Amino acid sequence: MGKAAENGRVRKIMLILSKATIDNVYACFILANGARMEGIEAEIFFTFFGLEAIQKEKLEHLHVATVGNPAMHIPTMVGGLPGMEALATKMMKKEMEKLDIPPVGEFLEILSASGVKLWACKLAMDMFHLGTEDLIEDLDGVLTVGDFYDKAAGENTHLMFI
Amino acid sequence: MGKAAENGRVRKIMLILSKATIDNVYACFILANGARMEGIEAEIFFTFFGLEAIQKEKLEHLHVATVGNPAMHIPTMVGGLPGMEALATKMMKKEMEKLDIPPVGEFLEILSASGVKLWACKLAMDMFHLGTEDLIEDLDGVLTVGDFYDKAAGENTHLMFI
Amino acid sequence: MGKAAENGRVRKIMLILSKATIDNVYACFILANGARMEGIEAEIFFTFFGLEAIQKEKLEHLHVATVGNPAMHIPTMVGGLPGMEALATKMMKKEMEKLDIPPVGEFLEILSASGVKLWACKLAMDMFHLGTEDLIEDLDGVLTVGDFYDKAAGENTHLMFI
Repeated sequence: MGKAAENGRVRKIMLILSKATIDNVYACFILANGARMEGIEAEIFFTFFGLEAIQKEKLEHLHVATVGNPAMHIPTMVGGLPGMEALATKMMKKEMEKLDIPPVGEFLEILSASGVKLWACKLAMDMFHLGTEDLIEDLDGVLTVGDFYDKAAGENTHLMFI
Repeated sequence: MGKAAENGRVRKIMLILSKATIDNVYACFILANGARMEGIEAEIFFTFFGLEAIQKEKLEHLHVATVGNPAMHIPTMVGGLPGMEALATKMMKKEMEKLDIPPVGEFLEILSASGVKLWACKLAMDMFHLGTEDLIEDLDGVLTVGDFYDKAAGENTHLMFI
Repeated sequence: MGKAAENGRVRKIMLILSKATIDNVYACFILANGARMEGIEAEIFFTFFGLEAIQKEKLEHLHVATVGNPAMHIPTMVGGLPGMEALATKMMKKEMEKLDIPPVGEFLEILSASGVKLWACKLAMDMFHLGTEDLIEDLDGVLTVGDFYDKAAGENTHLMFI
């Protein structure tokens, strides 16, 4: 990791995950995982709806948004039918599986084992009435926004809001 | 604020707010506010739909997206019923209030008073036919994208797109 | 461009485009274009649904999301009617045209000619079963997430997730 600091190379990635749609969650995890594979440090701050990705009872039930997501190419009236969102989600999960991308819970374990720090946002936990007992065991702690900025110190660190 | 520049600490946060959903608007404001509480500079560039958050006639009427937002756990057909969006928005605003998070207009005043710079995007204003008379009094000015990059100069400055 | 490195000026913008809604695509392109006009380097990494913006058969058919986007001020039940999304998209494209903002395909050509690097995400191409023959001619190559981080090296480089 010391090498990463040379020549202005990316040294640390700080990701703020605020959404619970499976495409955003996977994009976040893949950016964190890709960082670790390059010897880059990575931390994820789960806030707002993003908290669902680390909620024990919800993390395996995230969905793709079919309505409000023109890229799905499902006409809105059809996309709005009960079951369509589940179908699109199932299709996406199947493609993910083919590419050896693990389901959310397993992915979180891999990220944690590879050194990605997983933080929950204190304010969002209060807003959704959640305690740490509702969140995954691999959680590294609960942070305020200020704490998060403190952890973002250091040269060649980059923040991204997802 | 001079202290913030030491040891690669985050010195300035430049937020680009392009969305008008209340969860994105609050995430943006909370990130700016949290920065100021740590002595970090913060600026917000309101562009595209994000402009609504500083439009006098619209800023108190922002909504949570219930459809296209699987995290709301409202089935799409129900989420699409008139009134559901208003209800979800009301619930979220109530939780915000319990946590002493002010409504949008008041939050903007607090941000401005605490030194957060509030900028409107020139191109987006042209696109939506808006003049500065349509925007909040606390606005610090109208910028092009190029102007915004100029303001992002300086070590330990971070840009985030919301 | 050498000048841009002075005084901590923004030197390079690395944009990750993960969405296919026309407002996000244009926001991305305008940020890249605005960078080049200031002598700032710009690169775009098209991933997940963002890949549609460089898919030959899809890039001229991107839509604004009317449902799930409260900023459109179209009641959800109406926004969900077939044709409403097309109408909102047409209106937005018309406003764009008035401001001399080119359509997606032409915009990509301008970006490429002005030196913006256009990269496709390997993983997303595999997920959606796409080959380079499906993508625009101006594409500069296919990258893994790791490759992308390598290209983000250098002082005063900023990453943004759209």
